[in-house]
Amino acid sequence: MTRGFDRAEFAARLDAAQVRMDAAGLGAILLTTEADLRYFSGFLTRFWESPSRPWFLILPRAGVPVAVIPSIGAALMRQTWVEDIRTWAAPDPWDDGISLLADALREVGGPIGLPSGRESHLRMPLDDFELLKAASGLHFVDDHGIVAALRAVKSEAEIAKIARACGIAGRAFDRVPEIARAGVPLDRVFRDFQRLLLDEGADWVPYLAGGAGPDGYADVISPAAETPLAPGDVLMLDTGAVWDGYFCDYDRNFAVGLPSNSARDAHARLIEATAAGLDAAQVGAQASDVYAAMAAITGGGEGAGRLGHGLGMQLTEGLSLSAKDDSELRAGMVITLEPGIEVAPGRLLVHEENIVIRAAGPERLTRFSGPEMPVI
Amino acid sequence: MTRGFDRAEFAARLDAAQVRMDAAGLGAILLTTEADLRYFSGFLTRFWESPSRPWFLILPRAGVPVAVIPSIGAALMRQTWVEDIRTWAAPDPWDDGISLLADALREVGGPIGLPSGRESHLRMPLDDFELLKAASGLHFVDDHGIVAALRAVKSEAEIAKIARACGIAGRAFDRVPEIARAGVPLDRVFRDFQRLLLDEGADWVPYLAGGAGPDGYADVISPAAETPLAPGDVLMLDTGAVWDGYFCDYDRNFAVGLPSNSARDAHARLIEATAAGLDAAQVGAQASDVYAAMAAITGGGEGAGRLGHGLGMQLTEGLSLSAKDDSELRAGMVITLEPGIEVAPGRLLVHEENIVIRAAGPERLTRFSGPEMPVI
Repeated sequence: MTRGFDRAEFAARLDAAQVRMDAAGLGAILLTTEADLRYFSGFLTRFWESPSRPWFLILPRAGVPVAVIPSIGAALMRQTWVEDIRTWAAPDPWDDGISLLADALREVGGPIGLPSGRESHLRMPLDDFELLKAASGLHFVDDHGIVAALRAVKSEAEIAKIARACGIAGRAFDRVPEIARAGVPLDRVFRDFQRLLLDEGADWVPYLAGGAGPDGYADVISPAAETPLAPGDVLMLDTGAVWDGYFCDYDRNFAVGLPSNSARDAHARLIEATAAGLDAAQVGAQASDVYAAMAAITGGGEGAGRLGHGLGMQLTEGLSLSAKDDSELRAGMVITLEPGIEVAPGRLLVHEENIVIRAAGPERLTRFSGPEMPVI
Repeated sequence: MTRGFDRAEFAARLDAAQVRMDAAGLGAILLTTEADLRYFSGFLTRFWESPSRPWFLILPRAGVPVAVIPSIGAALMRQTWVEDIRTWAAPDPWDDGISLLADALREVGGPIGLPSGRESHLRMPLDDFELLKAASGLHFVDDHGIVAALRAVKSEAEIAKIARACGIAGRAFDRVPEIARAGVPLDRVFRDFQRLLLDEGADWVPYLAGGAGPDGYADVISPAAETPLAPGDVLMLDTGAVWDGYFCDYDRNFAVGLPSNSARDAHARLIEATAAGLDAAQVGAQASDVYAAMAAITGGGEGAGRLGHGLGMQLTEGLSLSAKDDSELRAGMVITLEPGIEVAPGRLLVHEENIVIRAAGPERLTRFSGPEMPVI
């Protein structure tokens, strides 16, 4: 599988945005975050880990994208399909790209759409945003959800990358018995599981969470403690591993020795709920329908706020499988099914799989778990 | 070394903020980003990788912090020193914590300071920020740089964590001959070096960059290509590895077989520049002084925009070693010295070390490299 995307794919993304910008009466869209900027440019780097420099990509209503970026990124941006690249020596405490950006935006003309809805943020200092408004004299508005709507429906090339990330994690999960058993501290398991993911081909491991305990775990977002695994524990590992900039996001539960009856039954119920979610994940259904199908089996409750979500260039993106989300499922959307059950007060069990919505019915991207937890 | 910090350290951080808020006439400071929120609460999780949910921490001018967070984070937040925790089931498409946050802010009273200067951003949708302003009726202003100023000066406990991360990376760099030699593809080296970092005790590896080529590398932020290392290449690996939420950020260059004379000379000059930067990094000096000391030896130029930067809870944070940055060095600041040289057109060599500024003179946190590149 080759890395990156054909130039035609970027052209199609831009074209789709321009049709919508035209309809919405926007002069341009201004992008500032890693995933949005990468979606339209192909600019892939881990350098976003540094908050010091802002990065800008302008999608004009007509014509080609304009990158306004720190000079440190010029060589890499020149490897993408973007040709109009304007740089400054960042960080500049007195003018961190603002006058350069204002000029570029004025050439294109407003109003300027900014992703402003759910999950978005503006990745630049608020002080600089005020300076930009003043320097450009342009009107900044919501992007009408254009960027989020386009990113929600994946191309076949994107789906293939997510599937590859899922495969990498699947092979790493198969090898968990090599690294986890009674007596091994949980933080050691976390460290070693990341090593397995890299060994199986992950480019990097932006996310790993999990937990362990006799009837499940207290929560699913804590860092690992040094507590050793004990017989009777359920161990859960949940990873967002990346291949070529695309995530998988799923988990597996393991029984350390014989699990309690309640944990075993809860796991079987989670598998049943996942199957019900899969059946409900049809084109035209709402996110809330898939939620309802799973909640009917788990006994309801949105403990974590939702029972699954969109997935792609980010660990989570787009819709939420919750009672309140009326987003319509469309072919090409990639989502997670993530039911959870409170096995005992304050003790959770969570299960997660990844699928893609297809016209002919949902397709599994992960090798779905059976009802019985593997014993380690 | 124990994880986390004493309660007294958090109390001291809050107290220092409150003294400054009082002087600046702020009613509260509102925090929305991972590092800012963690600095004042101790809330440490990789869950920020998901953009779906906003997180809020309010520092009132008097009294204790108030966390307004998604319910999925309640169990973990209860393990911190924060006691006033208010939650909602996020994501909520219709009110994603905004009315809860507006109520909490009104209790405290404005004006509300938001980190708005260099490197900051507001991690919530712009649409929600407008709703918050309307719902609270409060005035939102810059935080007067209070949060950035406090975070810039590290406590001994913070310095110890950074030093530990530096030690982990140092041991991994020592083992590079195990994984890199002529014929090994660069992407394999990247994957295996991350495995070494985990093996040596890193909790996770948020950042790895590097490059390879006969007279250096084309840039320092690109993902690794599949190109095999060749005799005569210089291989550079630059990592931000994390222990207990604190980063190291430094690199090492390796000669694959015998390096070219120009690469060898350039490396020796980088070591000399680093030593000059170390000498200049005295309490009371400006960031620009340290830049000038190094630039005098490398021949000047701010190719990457700067020759070093602050370091701590983020890979890069705070000041920049550049001609334009007049930030004053203070005891307890942790910085990187990162001179670069263009060895041939479009071919760079970069070297980086980490130090802490002390009243008695700078202290090395990394085991400084000698002038000769290790040969692999």
